[in-house]
Amino acid sequence: MKTSSLFTNHEWCIIENQFNPENHQIAESVFSIGNGHMGQRANFEESYSGKTLAGNYIGGVFYPDKTRVGWWKNGYPDYFAKVLNAPSWTHIHIRAQGEMCDLARSKVLSFKRTLNMQHGTLHRICTIELANKIQLTLESTRFVSIVDTEIGAIQYKITAVNSDVPLEINSFITSDVRNEDANYNETFWETVTQKQKDTLSILVDKTKKTPYKAPVFTVATGMKNIFYAPNNTDIQTKYTSNEKNICEHAQIVLKKGTTVVIEKLATQVSSLHYAENELLKIAEERLQNAAHKTFSNLHAEHIHAWKKKWELSDIQIEGDIAAQQGIRFSIFQLQQTYTGADSRLNIGPKGFTGEKYGGATYWDTEAFCLPFYLATSPEQVSKNLLLYRYNQLPQAIENAKKLGFTNGAALYPMVTMTGEECHNEWEITFEEIHRNGAIAYAIYNYVNYTDDKAYLIEYGLEVLIAINRFWAQRVSFSQIKKKYVILGVTGPNEYENNINNNWYTNYIARWCINYTLEIISWIKRVAAEQYAQLIQKITFNENLEIIRWTDIAKNIYLPTDNQYGLILQQEGYLDKEQKTVDELPSAERPINQHWSWDRILRSCYIKQADVVQGLYMFEHDFDIETIRRNFDFYEARCVHESSLSPCIHSVVASKLQNIDKAYELYLRTSRLDLDDYNKEAHEGLHITSMSGSWLAIVQGFAGMRVEKGKLIFNPILPKQWKSYSFFILFRNALIKVSVHSKYVHIRIKNVSQLFIHVYSKEYDVRENEELTVAYQENVQ
Amino acid sequence: MKTSSLFTNHEWCIIENQFNPENHQIAESVFSIGNGHMGQRANFEESYSGKTLAGNYIGGVFYPDKTRVGWWKNGYPDYFAKVLNAPSWTHIHIRAQGEMCDLARSKVLSFKRTLNMQHGTLHRICTIELANKIQLTLESTRFVSIVDTEIGAIQYKITAVNSDVPLEINSFITSDVRNEDANYNETFWETVTQKQKDTLSILVDKTKKTPYKAPVFTVATGMKNIFYAPNNTDIQTKYTSNEKNICEHAQIVLKKGTTVVIEKLATQVSSLHYAENELLKIAEERLQNAAHKTFSNLHAEHIHAWKKKWELSDIQIEGDIAAQQGIRFSIFQLQQTYTGADSRLNIGPKGFTGEKYGGATYWDTEAFCLPFYLATSPEQVSKNLLLYRYNQLPQAIENAKKLGFTNGAALYPMVTMTGEECHNEWEITFEEIHRNGAIAYAIYNYVNYTDDKAYLIEYGLEVLIAINRFWAQRVSFSQIKKKYVILGVTGPNEYENNINNNWYTNYIARWCINYTLEIISWIKRVAAEQYAQLIQKITFNENLEIIRWTDIAKNIYLPTDNQYGLILQQEGYLDKEQKTVDELPSAERPINQHWSWDRILRSCYIKQADVVQGLYMFEHDFDIETIRRNFDFYEARCVHESSLSPCIHSVVASKLQNIDKAYELYLRTSRLDLDDYNKEAHEGLHITSMSGSWLAIVQGFAGMRVEKGKLIFNPILPKQWKSYSFFILFRNALIKVSVHSKYVHIRIKNVSQLFIHVYSKEYDVRENEELTVAYQENVQ
Repeated sequence: MKTSSLFTNHEWCIIENQFNPENHQIAESVFSIGNGHMGQRANFEESYSGKTLAGNYIGGVFYPDKTRVGWWKNGYPDYFAKVLNAPSWTHIHIRAQGEMCDLARSKVLSFKRTLNMQHGTLHRICTIELANKIQLTLESTRFVSIVDTEIGAIQYKITAVNSDVPLEINSFITSDVRNEDANYNETFWETVTQKQKDTLSILVDKTKKTPYKAPVFTVATGMKNIFYAPNNTDIQTKYTSNEKNICEHAQIVLKKGTTVVIEKLATQVSSLHYAENELLKIAEERLQNAAHKTFSNLHAEHIHAWKKKWELSDIQIEGDIAAQQGIRFSIFQLQQTYTGADSRLNIGPKGFTGEKYGGATYWDTEAFCLPFYLATSPEQVSKNLLLYRYNQLPQAIENAKKLGFTNGAALYPMVTMTGEECHNEWEITFEEIHRNGAIAYAIYNYVNYTDDKAYLIEYGLEVLIAINRFWAQRVSFSQIKKKYVILGVTGPNEYENNINNNWYTNYIARWCINYTLEIISWIKRVAAEQYAQLIQKITFNENLEIIRWTDIAKNIYLPTDNQYGLILQQEGYLDKEQKTVDELPSAERPINQHWSWDRILRSCYIKQADVVQGLYMFEHDFDIETIRRNFDFYEARCVHESSLSPCIHSVVASKLQNIDKAYELYLRTSRLDLDDYNKEAHEGLHITSMSGSWLAIVQGFAGMRVEKGKLIFNPILPKQWKSYSFFILFRNALIKVSVHSKYVHIRIKNVSQLFIHVYSKEYDVRENEELTVAYQENVQ
Repeated sequence: MKTSSLFTNHEWCIIENQFNPENHQIAESVFSIGNGHMGQRANFEESYSGKTLAGNYIGGVFYPDKTRVGWWKNGYPDYFAKVLNAPSWTHIHIRAQGEMCDLARSKVLSFKRTLNMQHGTLHRICTIELANKIQLTLESTRFVSIVDTEIGAIQYKITAVNSDVPLEINSFITSDVRNEDANYNETFWETVTQKQKDTLSILVDKTKKTPYKAPVFTVATGMKNIFYAPNNTDIQTKYTSNEKNICEHAQIVLKKGTTVVIEKLATQVSSLHYAENELLKIAEERLQNAAHKTFSNLHAEHIHAWKKKWELSDIQIEGDIAAQQGIRFSIFQLQQTYTGADSRLNIGPKGFTGEKYGGATYWDTEAFCLPFYLATSPEQVSKNLLLYRYNQLPQAIENAKKLGFTNGAALYPMVTMTGEECHNEWEITFEEIHRNGAIAYAIYNYVNYTDDKAYLIEYGLEVLIAINRFWAQRVSFSQIKKKYVILGVTGPNEYENNINNNWYTNYIARWCINYTLEIISWIKRVAAEQYAQLIQKITFNENLEIIRWTDIAKNIYLPTDNQYGLILQQEGYLDKEQKTVDELPSAERPINQHWSWDRILRSCYIKQADVVQGLYMFEHDFDIETIRRNFDFYEARCVHESSLSPCIHSVVASKLQNIDKAYELYLRTSRLDLDDYNKEAHEGLHITSMSGSWLAIVQGFAGMRVEKGKLIFNPILPKQWKSYSFFILFRNALIKVSVHSKYVHIRIKNVSQLFIHVYSKEYDVRENEELTVAYQENVQ
């Protein structure tokens, strides 16, 4: 096992072998656990007076805070949705002979923290010496169940090492929590009620009322502790409480060499799922059920469920343990952030690991994460991601209305919790409209992958039409160019603002129109009645609107440069001083930390895949030489200062058989947080970009595509690896693909037969018969 | 006298004849008084529980508040400079038989408020009936002296109308004040000390410490009250105080029909001018001197000084009392905002009338206000405006450095108090770089008008070189165009952001270079030694830098359209959907209140003079047909949603003999606040744009220019006016110009002879001999 600067490399675990207070906040992020419904940073159970970022989050529960902005501009959203630090339940504070256990004030004699990704469990064992010379060994095992998602559990062991120790143990739940991100350093929770009865303790808290049209959330947080004293002696406990806490308090004299164990079961349920007045009762029931199951059964079920998840989604890499750990860490984080159980939830850019960015939903979901869930989770998981947007269509229409659009045009928000826009930089919110295209493209992607055409009829077309209506109003006609133009946008490359004719935006707008026209003509054939109902519901003026759309699609301006044979990122891009990334002094990188914003804007440097994003999504529209020419040009200018960028370039580099470049770009994605490349892991993890690691392997190295219902692979193998293999769920089949230096092996399960293309040749693959194809290089 | 909706028209006064609480905040703005050093909104002396915006300001005293901004961008200034509500001294609270006098809770039987602009005095008389049926007549006369600028004074009379009245009078000073504009609703003042001795009361307060590299201000506020009881009876007073107030308290039984008079003398002195530890003593001295002079002498001196100001700057309009009142209001406000006594002060966009906009100095000063002060005030006044920028050159160089510029390049801030940038919208602060050009142009303007060429040698060239160094780095070379381009700017039209090649910006950059080269070659001839010292001081690499500048000036790209013979506001402007203002539904105007920002940005509508600003400043570079063609095109697209816009279009319209358009645009400027066109006068007045009223008359209707040292007039007379006349200070001469329908009359004073051009013909004008020229129409 080689060791990176921060954590030990291990194929299934993240391991920290010594306590380093300087890295503690990074570790709190990296060791976070979650289950789609809730999750936490790896804050210690004991009191900790060192630097820490307290974080315990419940999916979908947010606070609509006052928008901070310089001067107000018309159309700004009222509020900024804050990922809200929820009441917390992980605290077990200990005093030994009156001295508070606190790693920041103790001598740490040994320390090991382990995130077992196979089991979804956080484990820590450490021996410390307090100021009063008492030595204790503390061991904690923590998880949030992916079976009973409203349940979290801790097994906490305290062992007296060097003497008999009079211990006070305080296990509590509290709503006395703060957000690091608060405009006025204010608190966001108010106590509704609390209950302590028998061994159950429950706090019910509510987010403060705001002047905004946004929900107020109520959350019930409950705990039940079970104390196991050495030799089965009894421990008498008592409860204390104040407005914001309930604490169970135990006192025991722990003999030298013996161990007391606390099993703490906790629940968090919210008004997102239940009536407010039932939360107390439901929390009680959840705790009783959990207690009935016991900690060890909950733990076993949880591990088993993770095993099932890994059977569908694991990627194995031979010969590169850092890469192995990186890809499993990516998959693990994605799986614990979003499980697809609830179409009201989505994939926050920081998941359950931090507050930054606010809001839960960005175009990251559709453009980067969807392919991962499509291929690694049951269909319903991806469908719920799409339904999330379908259900928010009214708000997207409202959002467009706010900006002056009519006739049911929809502009999906750039950042949202409930469908309302809740970010406030005009150049992003108002102008980064290509996101609408990604939402349409996700429908195509989903249907293409799953063949669930019924989705189009029931949901998809309505969204597509609303998006097309937006494009139809957002374009304008240039009398000079005699073309439709899209002025004043920000493309995926956010190092350009308010530009005209961003090629990617114009291209995806045209694609939306053409795809929608194709779907309309198909639905009219196969589901005429439902189509008729829809056009009535949305008063679709089929003739007029389709004529206009067709005209726009035919005559939209797509900037290119004939001299260099380039697609132009936007009109005028070549007027910029042309420099390449290798001309940048390393002291000036990342440029967003060293250059002023205006300098970034007028430079030719690119934050993230923009033209290349379009080449990735619409690769079939371009010959390989066009892709190569443009990739080479833009890759040389791309600083990849978005976590979402290198993965896309990596996939395209793989397509171009530029395996070294593809590998280099893959590395930038897959261990971004584990190695803290960007010095920001302490704020939380880059969850959505973790899908990029997966894309770079499966779509990149393995060249997986789905075309006309057929699975296609064009595998290449980075020379740093001995082999890699992965699982793919495709419709009813579970497929395992292994790529070695000489052969590609494919196995299928759950279906008896599947036709699969490898290196452009079709194979008839049968269940339980491994297909072996000779590895080929330089196949495009 | 006709009456506008708000105030009575009067040639010298603003009069409000009845109390309307709904308009009280507007009146508080309009009736503001100031003296360059300090000033206030017309807040009542008595307690007032209705809607009011408390405002008392000291020039140059600000608070560096935390910058509010969405997501931080590199290069943002640390703080936003708030115009700070200073401790106040105008309060005289009265209880009559225990009942608080408060116009919001009284029956107002009569009310008259008068701003006498000739005398610079605010007067109010009203009779009210309190809830307890006691009727009082209150009369206040208030001014802030333009002779002793650290002194303010109130004469306050209370008359018992319908009964004998037991009165309590509380005259106080207080630092318990708040800014309406506070991020966190916090206070900004802390008490340092206070002193009450004999009849003098003084508070010393200090602005709170901030983490920013910006000054902390200390202010001493003092008062001395003199009570005059009826029949010369004595009034015994006592003093009370708390941490933030000192109050002088009097009790008297006022017989029916008699009057008590309070003369309140006040002072405010600040650490901007004196050592902090001397402020208390200085405040005492100021008060003693003022008391020695007495209220009535202070008042008489003040009125006399205003008379002198008017002798240099008055404009008379016959036949249009609303216009007469409008232009005098504009001149009055400009004169009381900036007197030129102190080169550390400047002309805040709201002067002493409100908090909005923060900061004191915008390009408004150079581009709009300077010509007014040049022509109506002694030379030193304008020189101090220029020295303000000269003295802040180090900060402008620092500001440019922050944005990545080197070699002593200067970017003057968009908004500032001390020379540091303190606004935070990137599209304005980082990109609205044309302001640098206005600062250079002001040097040209000043020297052209005054012939003070020594200024160039001593100060001007150093600023010009630093500005040129900025342009030389800010341009880049387009390989496509084979021209220098300026990318990523915001022009004067702030309804475009981050555009490329704004014609005005590129043009003024070129002008700066050419002007500087001309000045360098002149200074080398006439002041070789001083030149040598300067180039050493700033390590000016004459050869290399001048070669580059010359190349840039020769090869800078200026966007034009040959098809329509247009100057293009920016590259790509004609790609926008071309609409004219008359196609805008009135319900959608102003568009900045009805359209979202992105819609404004991509529309062709123009906020304020941009190409036309360039045509105004560089009119000699263009033939009249080019000016006409471009004016007609851009005027049709300009919504004039900046108060600084219509005046410039008006001047150009006058030049084009388009007198009706010129008059229409003049009206939009001159009564903007008096008639509250934009529904924002309650926040304060548009001080800097008031110079536009003056420009529209003197440069517009009268066609005044100074060319090669000669004064030129090309007068036209709006048909709505019988005549107009104005005074101009030109070098040593005081000139009076009168324009009637048949004749133009010119008189000169202080010099025996002056050659003046009228309608392109030169006249030899002698002191005390009136020149009369026949009025001509259609002369260009």
